Amino acid sequence: MTTPSRRDLANAIRFLAIDAVQAANSGHPGMPMGMADIAEVLWNDYLTHNPGNPKWFNRDRFILSNGHGSMLQYALLHLSGYPLPIEELKRFRQLGSMTPGHPENFETPGIETTTGPLGQGFANAVGMALAEKLLAQRFNRPEHEIVDHRTWVFMGDGCLMEGISHEAASLAGTWGLHKLVAFWDDNKISIDGHTDGWFTDDTPARFEAYGWRVIRNVDGQDAVEIKTAIDTALKHSDKPTLICCRTAIGFGSPNKAGKESSHGAPLGKDEIVATRAALNWPYAEFEIPQEIYDGWRSHSTGAVREDQWNRLFDAYAAQYPAEAAELTRRSHADLPADFLSQADAYIAKLQAEGLTIASRKASQMAIEAFAPLLPELIGGSADLAHSNLTLWKASKSVASSDPNANYVYYGVREFAMTAISNGLQLHGGFIPFDATFLVFSDYARNAVRMSALMGAHAIHVYTHDSIGLGEDGPTHQPIEHLASLRYIPHNDVWRPCDAVESVVSWKAAIARKDGPSCLVFSRQNLIHQPRDAQQVAQIEQGGYVLRDSEGTPDVILIATGSEVGLATQAADVLSGEGVKVRVVSMPSSDVFDRQPLEYRQSVLPNAVRKRVAVEAGVTDFWRKYVGLDGDVVGIDSFGASAPAEALFPHFGFTVEHVVAAVKALG
Amino acid sequence: MTTPSRRDLANAIRFLAIDAVQAANSGHPGMPMGMADIAEVLWNDYLTHNPGNPKWFNRDRFILSNGHGSMLQYALLHLSGYPLPIEELKRFRQLGSMTPGHPENFETPGIETTTGPLGQGFANAVGMALAEKLLAQRFNRPEHEIVDHRTWVFMGDGCLMEGISHEAASLAGTWGLHKLVAFWDDNKISIDGHTDGWFTDDTPARFEAYGWRVIRNVDGQDAVEIKTAIDTALKHSDKPTLICCRTAIGFGSPNKAGKESSHGAPLGKDEIVATRAALNWPYAEFEIPQEIYDGWRSHSTGAVREDQWNRLFDAYAAQYPAEAAELTRRSHADLPADFLSQADAYIAKLQAEGLTIASRKASQMAIEAFAPLLPELIGGSADLAHSNLTLWKASKSVASSDPNANYVYYGVREFAMTAISNGLQLHGGFIPFDATFLVFSDYARNAVRMSALMGAHAIHVYTHDSIGLGEDGPTHQPIEHLASLRYIPHNDVWRPCDAVESVVSWKAAIARKDGPSCLVFSRQNLIHQPRDAQQVAQIEQGGYVLRDSEGTPDVILIATGSEVGLATQAADVLSGEGVKVRVVSMPSSDVFDRQPLEYRQSVLPNAVRKRVAVEAGVTDFWRKYVGLDGDVVGIDSFGASAPAEALFPHFGFTVEHVVAAVKALG
Repeated sequence: MTTPSRRDLANAIRFLAIDAVQAANSGHPGMPMGMADIAEVLWNDYLTHNPGNPKWFNRDRFILSNGHGSMLQYALLHLSGYPLPIEELKRFRQLGSMTPGHPENFETPGIETTTGPLGQGFANAVGMALAEKLLAQRFNRPEHEIVDHRTWVFMGDGCLMEGISHEAASLAGTWGLHKLVAFWDDNKISIDGHTDGWFTDDTPARFEAYGWRVIRNVDGQDAVEIKTAIDTALKHSDKPTLICCRTAIGFGSPNKAGKESSHGAPLGKDEIVATRAALNWPYAEFEIPQEIYDGWRSHSTGAVREDQWNRLFDAYAAQYPAEAAELTRRSHADLPADFLSQADAYIAKLQAEGLTIASRKASQMAIEAFAPLLPELIGGSADLAHSNLTLWKASKSVASSDPNANYVYYGVREFAMTAISNGLQLHGGFIPFDATFLVFSDYARNAVRMSALMGAHAIHVYTHDSIGLGEDGPTHQPIEHLASLRYIPHNDVWRPCDAVESVVSWKAAIARKDGPSCLVFSRQNLIHQPRDAQQVAQIEQGGYVLRDSEGTPDVILIATGSEVGLATQAADVLSGEGVKVRVVSMPSSDVFDRQPLEYRQSVLPNAVRKRVAVEAGVTDFWRKYVGLDGDVVGIDSFGASAPAEALFPHFGFTVEHVVAAVKALG
Repeated sequence: MTTPSRRDLANAIRFLAIDAVQAANSGHPGMPMGMADIAEVLWNDYLTHNPGNPKWFNRDRFILSNGHGSMLQYALLHLSGYPLPIEELKRFRQLGSMTPGHPENFETPGIETTTGPLGQGFANAVGMALAEKLLAQRFNRPEHEIVDHRTWVFMGDGCLMEGISHEAASLAGTWGLHKLVAFWDDNKISIDGHTDGWFTDDTPARFEAYGWRVIRNVDGQDAVEIKTAIDTALKHSDKPTLICCRTAIGFGSPNKAGKESSHGAPLGKDEIVATRAALNWPYAEFEIPQEIYDGWRSHSTGAVREDQWNRLFDAYAAQYPAEAAELTRRSHADLPADFLSQADAYIAKLQAEGLTIASRKASQMAIEAFAPLLPELIGGSADLAHSNLTLWKASKSVASSDPNANYVYYGVREFAMTAISNGLQLHGGFIPFDATFLVFSDYARNAVRMSALMGAHAIHVYTHDSIGLGEDGPTHQPIEHLASLRYIPHNDVWRPCDAVESVVSWKAAIARKDGPSCLVFSRQNLIHQPRDAQQVAQIEQGGYVLRDSEGTPDVILIATGSEVGLATQAADVLSGEGVKVRVVSMPSSDVFDRQPLEYRQSVLPNAVRKRVAVEAGVTDFWRKYVGLDGDVVGIDSFGASAPAEALFPHFGFTVEHVVAAVKALG
């Protein structure tokens, strides 16, 4: 081979994808074959990154929202010198490989986010671009543009059909995220075939309606046209850009290009031979000539670029040492040294004050108390700020150019909100929280799952946590949501019973760097519970003995949130009748279940089987603690529209009913 | 009062809303005050309906997608003579009233769908308009336009911000649903305040990009402009129409009009006095003068309209008796008389054949077998037809004008798909099913919940039901989804273990007229299980003894889906060692839990506490059956990308592990 052409460089992507999918007998060759030329131009001529240090803070972010084309990204990482050897590409989609079926940021260096669930990568990218804008506002100084990078995102027809693309694009347009550039892989093929029958949007006009710059009719197989389009995008600094690239899915395959048959299955041996001939690629399976590797030279320029930036940062640090230290701390996701002790002091003070308030109000007090300590905290709500109580005194809209902008008015867009939280967190420099009513966590559910899968340190605040929401009725009253969120692996759900537990849940969520937390708060007031210092400390263990009997209890009442007060009242009645009752407050079953067995058994002794759980949600969840011989006071139907004071007794949340449930155990 | 003006008629809506919200001390007066004039013109001059018979089949459908403005609809129903007395309006948002906080179709005659979760009402409306188009294609004959009605939908900024509005509008445009007319309440206020900061879309341009006709800049407080706009919409018959109405939220309130303070709280006594003065409305709380009632005269014309239609239908029935009978049957939601017996015959045949196939394949066989019996069956998939196996031989796209069009290519739009299913069902004449991968039920989750809340007879098909999906990896592998869907009240989830159970689940879903079913199928082959006729019949009870021991069992294994085969293999090993093992197949815990106690205890005798449940999903769900002393073989972490054959042993789904779990119980 003489000096490889651009097409040769792109073909290296194509054949790595073709060969890996064939070897795995599973995967999606069509998208990498279609987008290879775009990727080659972007990565070799524009992308600022350092394959030697995938975590370099000021790198451009590259997101593959159409994540089924994962081999495109693995090929890019491999060819440009990331620590992803060819052996791993040969193990595509195999157990324990670095090349899973869809890109997973926790498995593969250089992958910024986990994609596959369509549309979410695009929303993550909007979050990352927002993070960049806000960090630049906060930390850059004249002649010290230390935060200055772009976010590039590939997306397919599927991403654009998904509703989340609407929500995310609308916000990106509103915010004028001009460093965000999206490439639409306009190949007119989705899994069911030619998209004529189900995708007839005028997508360019749609994005213009969101305030984007749209570059139409780019030949996605022509490097010159691609370059021109990117140059045009970079000329402006007011709007995000959508580059509409016409491509052929499976480009280069004589019999499958332009057809859905190349989308999600191996090309097959004969077609691979034909494709090698058609693209003039005489090399063996997984064989990449040295000239091709040499052509993918970003490795060397990457180190140079990071080195230049390091010098820039040193100069900045010399002039603005406090800001440099702060940015470093935030980019390393280190909490301020005194955060936890300050939080504990605040919690102790609250315990002493004994406020009876709604836990959503206590949540707002926690934000008010912690935000000044944590400039990385960025909040927002899906158009329910005054219900979720997510605004605090220093809140400033991110739509502004204020250096301390820290609050996102998301509008009614729960799904994009949550995926943008994930993007803000994955970018680095922020601890994001988002908020809506608990019942509308449904709208965002897969993004919550993605927080958990990625181990993203995002905080999801859900208020109006039960039938206690009242008059809005069953469409707005969560029933199954607590249990359903708890069942998401690696997701911590907290439902505090009073102001003190509420603030502890905020502390725990902030301290939990390797995963998300869902903080669930009440609309209505919750009675303050007395605790000694040990009990206050035990809240962080997720479940603890809030009130105990002398000696071994006859009965254990387990409750969360608004039902803890009810349980203690029932305990009063039962104690008055000589029953030895323990009340366990269980604000987070997820956290409790991670405690050592010894601790868990100290709270719930195996021998005590008379157990009644009380929670205004589905009953079956609690069988894990009360077993077949206990009982649960809960709700397994939909709620109803009425004042909360009418609903709780209507659905059996009364002292009498809890007492009767205990007595019925015999 | 002399003859009331249009404004007077509209003011009756305003003050009913104002007074009801004030009486309840809860609710949303702003929207009804803003949209009252639009509603008055539409209902009095255009809406074809019969207040005396809210279920008249050929009525226009009116949907309030911005359902928080429920008092608008209650006022309309009351004023135009529906059976909704003033006493019920006085009991707005009280327990047991016919006027819950958000419109609920199962509580109030004349409410077509339950709204409140934003955007879904709009998608329901798209489904209803599609139903009308398809029934017209199927049943109308020249000069016999017996199916001929419109779908009108009110929507606010919130609906338009939600992603589902994108998905639904795109499909409506693609399908050219010209009898669908949407009114956008463009008041520039959402809960957080003026929408400038978070909703800057050019909405008219956006809808034009979807292929809608857009009528811009209509003064929503001017009856003449509203009439002109509607007349324009009705002139055309090619596209759905969006009428953009500029309104003032809280119109008429001197101090709160145009402000978010009128959105979601009572106006307050003083402001109500001021509003009465400003709008020249001298009447007392809830007082409506007779002249106003007389002005709302649709009651009489409604009966005339239905009567005209009945004569039209009689003429049609005389000429096309078979079609008339079929439409009547479908509109009454009666199954064909022989459906259940034919289904049973097919099930018996399958049991005899003993096929070992993927349950998704068995699902397709069920569709193939049942669809010819059920022309009301309408299917679709979110761009996964060849994975979900939802196409059958007679499938014809609804995008066509074919009289037997019965298949919806939804594109990658899970949420709108599911809400459109709800709309198709609520319209009448159809039993809809939709399909995606189980993991992506997340994207549609609140619409599944709405199916259940409304008791909508919709069938949600979810394939690729576990880590058995394989190489696509953890983003695509459901873990918590089975349990989470089962916890939705009134939702029946089925996870069949072989072809026979799969077809039974389809039969059950079709027979269950008062609620939805989620049918969960495998990607991979599942071993056929032998059964006698009694066992085949017991499948419909949700759980049954698939294999039993002599006498009282020592151990009960409970399993679903792909893990039933594993459980029977473990039972073989244990039986060989002299352990008496019962295997319970539990395809639907929801259905099983509804069986009489006696039956449930015959399957799971209380005394037998050595129980192990096996399911490739979260373990804690099964504690309701195995208690504290049993065990569960399941998966509480995310999955991984690898072939299914590697994943099952990796995550402990082996005979050895199940046997060991049993033995560990002692």
